[in-house]
Amino acid sequence: MIVKISPRGSMDQLSQLEVDSLKQGASSELYQLYRNCSLAVLSSGAQTDDAKSLFSLHKDFDINVLRRERGIKLELINPPASAFVDEQIIVGIQEHLFAVLRDLIYVRHKFSNLKHINPNDPTHITNMVFDILRNARAISPMQDPNVVVCWGGHSINHVEYKYTKEVGYQLGLRKLDICTGCGPGAMKGPMKGAAIGHAKQRIHKPRYIGITEPSIIAAEPPNQIVSELVIMPDIEKRLEAFVRMGHGIIIFPGGPGTAEELLYILGILLHKKNADIPFPLILTGPRESAAYFEELDAFIGATLGKEAQAKYQIIIDDPAAAARQMRLAMEQVKQHRKQTGDSYQYQWGLTIEPDFQLPFEPTHDAMESLDLHMNQDKAKLAANLRKAFSGIVAGNVKADTMQYVEDYGPFKLKGDAALMVLMDKLLSAFVSQQRMKLPGSHYTPCYQISK
Amino acid sequence: MIVKISPRGSMDQLSQLEVDSLKQGASSELYQLYRNCSLAVLSSGAQTDDAKSLFSLHKDFDINVLRRERGIKLELINPPASAFVDEQIIVGIQEHLFAVLRDLIYVRHKFSNLKHINPNDPTHITNMVFDILRNARAISPMQDPNVVVCWGGHSINHVEYKYTKEVGYQLGLRKLDICTGCGPGAMKGPMKGAAIGHAKQRIHKPRYIGITEPSIIAAEPPNQIVSELVIMPDIEKRLEAFVRMGHGIIIFPGGPGTAEELLYILGILLHKKNADIPFPLILTGPRESAAYFEELDAFIGATLGKEAQAKYQIIIDDPAAAARQMRLAMEQVKQHRKQTGDSYQYQWGLTIEPDFQLPFEPTHDAMESLDLHMNQDKAKLAANLRKAFSGIVAGNVKADTMQYVEDYGPFKLKGDAALMVLMDKLLSAFVSQQRMKLPGSHYTPCYQISK
Amino acid sequence: MIVKISPRGSMDQLSQLEVDSLKQGASSELYQLYRNCSLAVLSSGAQTDDAKSLFSLHKDFDINVLRRERGIKLELINPPASAFVDEQIIVGIQEHLFAVLRDLIYVRHKFSNLKHINPNDPTHITNMVFDILRNARAISPMQDPNVVVCWGGHSINHVEYKYTKEVGYQLGLRKLDICTGCGPGAMKGPMKGAAIGHAKQRIHKPRYIGITEPSIIAAEPPNQIVSELVIMPDIEKRLEAFVRMGHGIIIFPGGPGTAEELLYILGILLHKKNADIPFPLILTGPRESAAYFEELDAFIGATLGKEAQAKYQIIIDDPAAAARQMRLAMEQVKQHRKQTGDSYQYQWGLTIEPDFQLPFEPTHDAMESLDLHMNQDKAKLAANLRKAFSGIVAGNVKADTMQYVEDYGPFKLKGDAALMVLMDKLLSAFVSQQRMKLPGSHYTPCYQISK
Amino acid sequence: MIVKISPRGSMDQLSQLEVDSLKQGASSELYQLYRNCSLAVLSSGAQTDDAKSLFSLHKDFDINVLRRERGIKLELINPPASAFVDEQIIVGIQEHLFAVLRDLIYVRHKFSNLKHINPNDPTHITNMVFDILRNARAISPMQDPNVVVCWGGHSINHVEYKYTKEVGYQLGLRKLDICTGCGPGAMKGPMKGAAIGHAKQRIHKPRYIGITEPSIIAAEPPNQIVSELVIMPDIEKRLEAFVRMGHGIIIFPGGPGTAEELLYILGILLHKKNADIPFPLILTGPRESAAYFEELDAFIGATLGKEAQAKYQIIIDDPAAAARQMRLAMEQVKQHRKQTGDSYQYQWGLTIEPDFQLPFEPTHDAMESLDLHMNQDKAKLAANLRKAFSGIVAGNVKADTMQYVEDYGPFKLKGDAALMVLMDKLLSAFVSQQRMKLPGSHYTPCYQISK
Repeated sequence: MIVKISPRGSMDQLSQLEVDSLKQGASSELYQLYRNCSLAVLSSGAQTDDAKSLFSLHKDFDINVLRRERGIKLELINPPASAFVDEQIIVGIQEHLFAVLRDLIYVRHKFSNLKHINPNDPTHITNMVFDILRNARAISPMQDPNVVVCWGGHSINHVEYKYTKEVGYQLGLRKLDICTGCGPGAMKGPMKGAAIGHAKQRIHKPRYIGITEPSIIAAEPPNQIVSELVIMPDIEKRLEAFVRMGHGIIIFPGGPGTAEELLYILGILLHKKNADIPFPLILTGPRESAAYFEELDAFIGATLGKEAQAKYQIIIDDPAAAARQMRLAMEQVKQHRKQTGDSYQYQWGLTIEPDFQLPFEPTHDAMESLDLHMNQDKAKLAANLRKAFSGIVAGNVKADTMQYVEDYGPFKLKGDAALMVLMDKLLSAFVSQQRMKLPGSHYTPCYQISK
Repeated sequence: MIVKISPRGSMDQLSQLEVDSLKQGASSELYQLYRNCSLAVLSSGAQTDDAKSLFSLHKDFDINVLRRERGIKLELINPPASAFVDEQIIVGIQEHLFAVLRDLIYVRHKFSNLKHINPNDPTHITNMVFDILRNARAISPMQDPNVVVCWGGHSINHVEYKYTKEVGYQLGLRKLDICTGCGPGAMKGPMKGAAIGHAKQRIHKPRYIGITEPSIIAAEPPNQIVSELVIMPDIEKRLEAFVRMGHGIIIFPGGPGTAEELLYILGILLHKKNADIPFPLILTGPRESAAYFEELDAFIGATLGKEAQAKYQIIIDDPAAAARQMRLAMEQVKQHRKQTGDSYQYQWGLTIEPDFQLPFEPTHDAMESLDLHMNQDKAKLAANLRKAFSGIVAGNVKADTMQYVEDYGPFKLKGDAALMVLMDKLLSAFVSQQRMKLPGSHYTPCYQISK
Repeated sequence: MIVKISPRGSMDQLSQLEVDSLKQGASSELYQLYRNCSLAVLSSGAQTDDAKSLFSLHKDFDINVLRRERGIKLELINPPASAFVDEQIIVGIQEHLFAVLRDLIYVRHKFSNLKHINPNDPTHITNMVFDILRNARAISPMQDPNVVVCWGGHSINHVEYKYTKEVGYQLGLRKLDICTGCGPGAMKGPMKGAAIGHAKQRIHKPRYIGITEPSIIAAEPPNQIVSELVIMPDIEKRLEAFVRMGHGIIIFPGGPGTAEELLYILGILLHKKNADIPFPLILTGPRESAAYFEELDAFIGATLGKEAQAKYQIIIDDPAAAARQMRLAMEQVKQHRKQTGDSYQYQWGLTIEPDFQLPFEPTHDAMESLDLHMNQDKAKLAANLRKAFSGIVAGNVKADTMQYVEDYGPFKLKGDAALMVLMDKLLSAFVSQQRMKLPGSHYTPCYQISK
Repeated sequence: MIVKISPRGSMDQLSQLEVDSLKQGASSELYQLYRNCSLAVLSSGAQTDDAKSLFSLHKDFDINVLRRERGIKLELINPPASAFVDEQIIVGIQEHLFAVLRDLIYVRHKFSNLKHINPNDPTHITNMVFDILRNARAISPMQDPNVVVCWGGHSINHVEYKYTKEVGYQLGLRKLDICTGCGPGAMKGPMKGAAIGHAKQRIHKPRYIGITEPSIIAAEPPNQIVSELVIMPDIEKRLEAFVRMGHGIIIFPGGPGTAEELLYILGILLHKKNADIPFPLILTGPRESAAYFEELDAFIGATLGKEAQAKYQIIIDDPAAAARQMRLAMEQVKQHRKQTGDSYQYQWGLTIEPDFQLPFEPTHDAMESLDLHMNQDKAKLAANLRKAFSGIVAGNVKADTMQYVEDYGPFKLKGDAALMVLMDKLLSAFVSQQRMKLPGSHYTPCYQISK
């Protein structure tokens, strides 16, 4: 089955050089990346978080970029049937396909070729993140602060999922836009809820921003409500995009990925230079998940201390209250940006240390040598803990890392006995609550805590 | 509490004469009608189908039309709190308020004053219905046939409600617009589902058309997703609006109102002159409701015969199939209109007999003298049965008629014994399945079958 | 040659009753009016102000309204070739054709049939004018006051024409919209100039409102820049539309029509109740036309006195100053409307006496019995003078009246000797300056001053 | 006088790195270029083609880029008063200011820093031109071929100017967009005319594309009707942009710049690989300019021969015919692109030799060593002649080159005696017809023909 797809969404025409770079044959690395990300997008809605099985299921899938009189067309060979309704591609998926093309080409052509860009220079990284978002038309100058980032697990239970929808609905009623990691679960619920809230408020161009990365997109295919899909090169740039673009963050229940995200934002907010920046951060869930938040809060208290706990607010079982808080905080954010002359759409003023910016490659060595001791600077500790959880996420769902773990056994984590106990407790809870992987498969931990 | 509301939606500015007609004091009949319809719209989302309790709950509600530099403003005194989010009126409700104003003023000013309009002349009635829809901007010349009317009960169970959402979702995925009677239940579900389908297909201005009437709006307040609200003067013009505007009809489970609707459309489709007009009509519901449709189908078979049964298709438990059928039928409808030069947006070519057009006032006399015998023309029988069910709906939920029934006892229905048995069986099923009124109240029948 | 034209512009679909009213055969009066107005619109750009010759040139022109699946189509039989570019109708003319259809049908269907409308009741007239403008979508609630009405002759010299363009350019640069009587000369120049000014200011939907009437449209076919064409039933409603819709008036050199307009607005502004209403009124022209304005000003001074002269400002040879004044005055107008709650788009608050509203039929009797004496109320005198000039315009260019004059000789005007001298002087100047008719034809006066 | 200006037009927000690059102080070269181009844009409408006098008139002008909450603002210090209307900057100029910022930053940041771009590689140059146009949003994929490039002199007489307006009007009536070098004269007339034609055809977003370059922008400030201003780095890329973006070319009378343009396009069309590409090329002017075209045609005939003459059509005094031809040819262009799969918006398929792409620096040496002999390949000869005229344009109006000529005397041109005679004749005609510089100044030739 061969289908030809016309461009749609915020992608410009491509130059010959750009089209050619994708044509260099199935052997090229860029082409493989491009094919896999496209396949992930086409698999939206599939009930799996297992990239490997997805890829093996669609071995005969192929994609070509064709030059045509109105720019380009994509040729899909044997695409997943679920991307189509009565033989017509779903428009949301069509847009996502071109977002993938846009971002992969942009990152490749721009950054791998710029003499003056140093990928290890924090200023340059921050500019790169901005540049990619801008190229994706995700930076629109005219809007007041209203982007709420929603973090939380891809594998959550039904009660939690309904709760994320309800919070989304309340955010939508308050005319707030939604930004998530764009997979299923807590990344989809708030968007679905907000869609109804936005409809009632007659917001004809609501924003459902999804920020993902090539190594996770296949495990968490973007849901089709996402109206602006952006593919950042790695998790660190993805996280930076969230915190510079978003005007506030809501955290729902989740697993190690959610823990990584919480540690990331707390590590940044603990930085002295960020002390005066208003940054609404709300942890919320249904009554049934109250214990989850107690546990998480206790972990933060025990590791990063009261100062960190003071950075967030926990709201249990009250979607309207969570949304109302967020709405009110937007005004503060706006005032602060105005006073400091910082952009409404991209918070340049937030200081992020290289420790949070430079890509962390979760090898066995890197994981084992993480400095996991209590008596270090809290922001530094947050950075190291963030890396530990990041590695576990990779070991759970990122195809490359999963292969490493399969080949060389679980990662080893070492450190203070007290800290190790805390981590073990938290991770075990994630396992028993089925937050590691989607239910239905048996979970084998990709880590070992050395106590 | 006093709130001032600015215009929004498809209403033009008002002339002084028009504004003044609403100012003639709380004693005027038009003002009372206007106030009550406005209150109904403001009560959207309330879990009740009892107009009387709604009105008694908000005795201190009042509304004034003020003239201002940008046209007019509405002044609301003590409006229901549920219409607001953080002190701001929900935009959907704001639009509905002005739709009420627009339609009540239009009907009053235009038709009660036109010398050349005869409200008993079928041609004039059809033109009036067109005129009201046009004034509401509901007739947009550029669109191809794609309006699916969804009929069904306001009081349906959870499984049925989910099913209506799923059908709506599948219709939305196929880029079809939705038109309903705009209350809760089967009138809301398809719109909610379609909103998600439309979002995935990136349809930025989907149409959710709600057609109601002053005497029922308080019992079935419009849901806020309705993007085009039209208030027709009575049920007969409302039904005519549905069948001339809609390009196909889906019928979900429901009570006597749904039976009225089915008899109405069958009576029209049985007319010889309409024999060649393609009009897709699908009865659909979840597996759990299969028995319901068997019963309804048997009733139609026994009363109107095989010819009538041939006019519809029953699809059980397959939302995608129902939507696919509808999508395919649109092409046929389009071809037919093109060939006959009939308008895409308002099917002038459909013949509707005065029996279906002239307002039926359900008094005790009128109900008792309905000609309910088998050996009459099938279309005629459909018309009479339609009136019988229409009277029962009124006795169930329309405030005025409810009062009559309270004062003078239940309506009496007479006719062929065989027919009476069939009706009794169907109505009893409606009662036992809680389709007469929302669950929670005890239902006392407003009718007696004289066997 | 037969051409079919699709709808375009602000016209809704038509009902069957409406379409049928235009089909009653070429003998019907409405059809004739409709055909002639359509022919006038199709003749846009023709260098003639002679309706009779236009009609005789196109005796074989015919027009039919056809019902089609997307509403209606117009069938043009032997239309003037100048309305087409390479066989395609010019879109501006296409819009104007449907404006004619819209307004003629609306006025006929609404007002000739309304029981509660009394065409001699001032309140009702004011509401009718509003109603027709609203139906034409010419009342848009969201804009701040910015409509400048430009009055002046259809027959002006080249220097004057260039000047009207320059003033239009300066108005356009100041983001002001233009409204004129929509014929050639001073009715076209400001729009052409403003189009360039608006383009430089990137105003993508500028308004060029043209207000005309059936009896003059053929003598002054609408220029195609007019983006909103409205056909009022008679000159009195047309003048009322100008002064209630416009937020300020600029008067360029012109003939008796311009004198009529100046007398009309002065008569209204002299009304005591209008004393506090800000209404910018500027008379302007090139250096070469200074004498013209001196003469006109002297005439006003001698007849209506200083109070009337104080209502306007004369600006010679300074387009930017004229436009700047207008721009500044808009702020005052806005403040006044806000304070009084009067609409930005239609000044209900302006008092207009029946003398200025009721149609004046210029028969020989009516003209001869006009009360043209000095010692009467100034506003009254203005009303009578207005009628005298209105009759002369009709005798010059309106087909029916021209025929009367041809049959029964020139109108006779009687009154104070002093006033007669003043009128004679002014009218003679109009004749010698070729302001009565387009140059090229010999002008035979349609009036006689009885001194 | 200090004014702050908000962004407008097709520019995205800037990154910190980009803003900083313009802040490096008045000493930086990029800053100077940026300041001068901005000053040129602000001087739109000035009646001068003398960059030096413009710069010396506004020595105290300065411009700063400020970072603000909605992105950036420009701070203008002592800007020319003509850019403002009643203290408000004209929106067209505001857009142009940001176009300058956009293009200078883009070219600087992208191309001076890309490792993989070779500015001497033809493929890379063609991609660069595309890239700059794309970044300026000048490549819109949805439109059918309709861009007519109009070339011609900045210094033309009044009859010629009116003629360019009339041709523009006829193009506008045929819904064609206009692209010019965006200065005065033949670069402005067609846009002004088209604006009226487009208004009559109700084209709400017509395109008036202006393509200029930093070294000429001050001598030919962009007229404000230009809706898309693009600043290409040099004349060669500017010419390539014209011929790849445009779908047809009209050449009006002009001086050496126009000759350069004609030689450029003929040189390309003479290339064997381009033989089958339809490329409408029309030379047109008023009756009074017939002799001019005879002369030019004779020069082409004598130098490049009949084959070159066959590439264009000369139309004298018939604007409608010229526009009609263009309109018809668009269909051919469209078919060709469709068949070859070449883009509607950027003609990749046109072969352009490096000789036409690589920047020609008109030094005394370079001019003197141009190979101006008859017996060479015609395309090659066209390339060399193009350079000769390009040098003369630079010597006439580009500030740097003018300085060279002032310092070292006129350029010397050598070659075949016959060719020298032909050139002398053509250039002398340009001088005597005042096509070299705007009338009012005495013209001193910047060249010497060595015969």
